[in-house]
Parts: sequence; C-alpha cells; structure tokens
Amino acid sequence: MNKRNYDLIEKYMLSCMEDSAHDKEHIYRVLYAALEIAKEETNVDHDVLITACLLHDIGRKEQYEDPSVCHAQVGGEKAFRFLREHGFENDFSERVKHCIVTHRFRNNDPPRSIEAKILFDADKLDVTGALGIARTLMYRGIVAEPLYTVTPDGSVSNGENDTVPSFFQEYKRKLEGIYSKFYTVRGKEIAKKRQQAAIDFYESLYSEVSSSYQNGKELLLQIIENDG
Amino acid sequence: MNKRNYDLIEKYMLSCMEDSAHDKEHIYRVLYAALEIAKEETNVDHDVLITACLLHDIGRKEQYEDPSVCHAQVGGEKAFRFLREHGFENDFSERVKHCIVTHRFRNNDPPRSIEAKILFDADKLDVTGALGIARTLMYRGIVAEPLYTVTPDGSVSNGENDTVPSFFQEYKRKLEGIYSKFYTVRGKEIAKKRQQAAIDFYESLYSEVSSSYQNGKELLLQIIENDG
Repeated sequence: MNKRNYDLIEKYMLSCMEDSAHDKEHIYRVLYAALEIAKEETNVDHDVLITACLLHDIGRKEQYEDPSVCHAQVGGEKAFRFLREHGFENDFSERVKHCIVTHRFRNNDPPRSIEAKILFDADKLDVTGALGIARTLMYRGIVAEPLYTVTPDGSVSNGENDTVPSFFQEYKRKLEGIYSKFYTVRGKEIAKKRQQAAIDFYESLYSEVSSSYQNGKELLLQIIENDG
Repeated sequence: MNKRNYDLIEKYMLSCMEDSAHDKEHIYRVLYAALEIAKEETNVDHDVLITACLLHDIGRKEQYEDPSVCHAQVGGEKAFRFLREHGFENDFSERVKHCIVTHRFRNNDPPRSIEAKILFDADKLDVTGALGIARTLMYRGIVAEPLYTVTPDGSVSNGENDTVPSFFQEYKRKLEGIYSKFYTVRGKEIAKKRQQAAIDFYESLYSEVSSSYQNGKELLLQIIENDG
C-alpha cells in the first residue's frame, strides 16, 4: 500500500470515530495484531487487510444511534462506498467489505477470505487478556453497570447464570470462553498467551470482594444482634 | 448498635448516593473491611465506626456538583447535622464527624481516633488489588480517559511522568504507591495480600499493548515503504 492511500483511508477512519471504548487506539491495536498474524499466513493481500482493519468500526456511530443497526453491516457498506468514490477497484472494495461485514462476533455470516479471518481474530484479541478486562471494565463504567451483583442472601454472585448486567456477568458470558474462537494459528497463540492474566484478575477480584462480604456480614450481624 | 438506628442511618446513606464508582456497594465493602480491621484493634467504639462507615461518602454529590468542595468536609458536616437532628448525643456525633472529615487521602487533617484510622484504611482498601484496578478502570470509562497515551515516537507510555490523564498515569500516580499508607495492622495485611494482583494486571496490560505497538508499527512501515 502506498503512503497516500494509507493516509486517505486513515483520515476517513478518524473522521468516523467517536466513543472511547472503541476509540482510535483500538483500531491501531487491531491493525498491528493483524499484521503480526498475517506474517504466518500465506497469500494475504496486505492492501485489503490494512484497509479493512482501518475501516472495520466506522459503522459504530450508526449502531450507537440506533441499536437495531449492525455496525459491521453498515460499516462494510460505508467502506465500499468510500472506496469506490475514491477510485478503488470494485473487486478490491468488495473484498474489504466482506472483511468488515463478517468481523462481528455474533454474526451468522462467518469470515471466508484469509483477510477476513485475520481481521476477525485481530479484533477478538482486543477482548483477551488484561486488555479485554480493561476495555470491558471501562465500558461498564460508561453504561453505569456494577462490578457484580449481590444475591438475596447477601453474598457476591460470581456472574454465572446472572440475569442482571454486571462485569462478572460479562466475564462469564463473553470473556471467559473467547479463547477457543480463533481462526488463525498466530491469533490463537497470542490469545492463549494472554488468557492467564484474565483468569487471574477475575479470580483475584472475586476472592477480594466475596471474602469481604462473607466476613463482614457475619461481624455486622453479631454486633447488631448483641446490641438489640 | 441497635437495628433501628442502623436502618435509620443506612436509609439516610442510600438517599444521598448517586454516581456509580462510589456506589452503595463501595459503602458496604468499606463497612465490612472496617469491621474486619476492628477485630484486631482495642477500644473501638463500634457504633461510631459503623455510623462513620455508612455516612463517609454522603458529601460526594456536593463535590461532584462543585469540585472545589471537599466531600469529606461537607460529608462530616452533613452527618453531624443528621445525627443531632435524630437525637444522637453531641459527643457521639462529633466523633463520627471526625472520622468522616479525616478519611480523605489528600487531606492535611490526618485521622486521630482509632475509629477514624480504621475508616481511613477500610476506604483505602477499595483502591488496592484487583478491586482498585477495576474501580479505577470503570472511572476512566465514565470520565472518557484512555487506557494509555502514545508517545510521539509511536510507542506506549508506561504512565510514569505522563502529563495527559490515562489509566496508566493513575496507576503510577495513585495505585502503585498506596500499599505503604495504612494505619492499622490488619489494614496493612489485607492490602499487602492484594498487592500482587494489581502489579500483575498492570504488567500484563503494559506488556500486551506495548509489544503489539512495537511489532505492529515496524511491520506497517515495512509494507508501506516497500510499496513506495
């Protein structure tokens, strides 16, 4: 890819970005991870890959404004239009669009091309390890959800089978199982390397809060009863 | 403390709470930690301690609305007024007020009574370990600050000497050094037990992102240069 095209596409990406959990540093992390994964794959079209990485989240704003919209679908369409308007070939623009449309986790339309598989994995790597924990926690702050829920008996729920949104629920639902869902060898490898940091963090946090509630509630009951 | 007074004070606390990083679960964690610390101290007035724990953050709203207001000072005054209005003795209300006014980290007025020292430590425990990391990250989300900053040469700053706010800056400024700032034996002990989880998380996150930027930027430069 020549510098002029890279700058053009990067500038368009920056003009589309807004919210902070999917901020521009996420885009660069995905791009960098994708290039690392691509090193161990054959027949990768780097121009398609770099363009798709830069533009994969440009539909976020539309999804944020209307949650029934899928950011992958609308992002793929926006990218296709932008590329065609700026003189890129139809085939190239279609291949970029395929990567973007299929990068979403919950999509029924799985990635087929090698570039699409690499983007998918690179994007998922941002949900692994300490980074996945950090981004998930920041997002819980933005949407004002708690760290954990307290069960009716006054103990801290570990998130499993929770019906109320919290960080522990999200960890159990999404973060914990993500490590088996990678297409590429190098993607899987990086994910596995990061997995222990996420497990350790979850277990430390759960142990800190659950032991505090357990001991504390008992001591409180003793004091209040003794006095009552 | 009898159940009727506990319920009265708890109800007043709940009516004062709003923002999510200092939500009501923080209050219960502080209360529970305080009771655990108190077990290893002598001459603790549990009524003063429980009341001060429940009411220690009731000035948060005032500080949020006007950052020049100190929530510890205004909270202490609000608590004193509330207690006097509800028939508590002047001496008791003054001792609760002292705990609340001196619980803040950056305060020049240090805690003097044993109950004030216990509240101070119990409150600081919420900034230690995985819990301190989690609460700090959620708050970065709320105030829309990034995880880290990227230096002009394109590498990830570790937070030391950063001038721009980020999670890494906050870790280096506040979280990393907190473990030496406890008054009580048990407070220090719990903090030390939690410390490694925080260090591990920071180091994992820094390693994940800094290596990704370093490798990725190099690969990108090669591709863009090779292409002319």
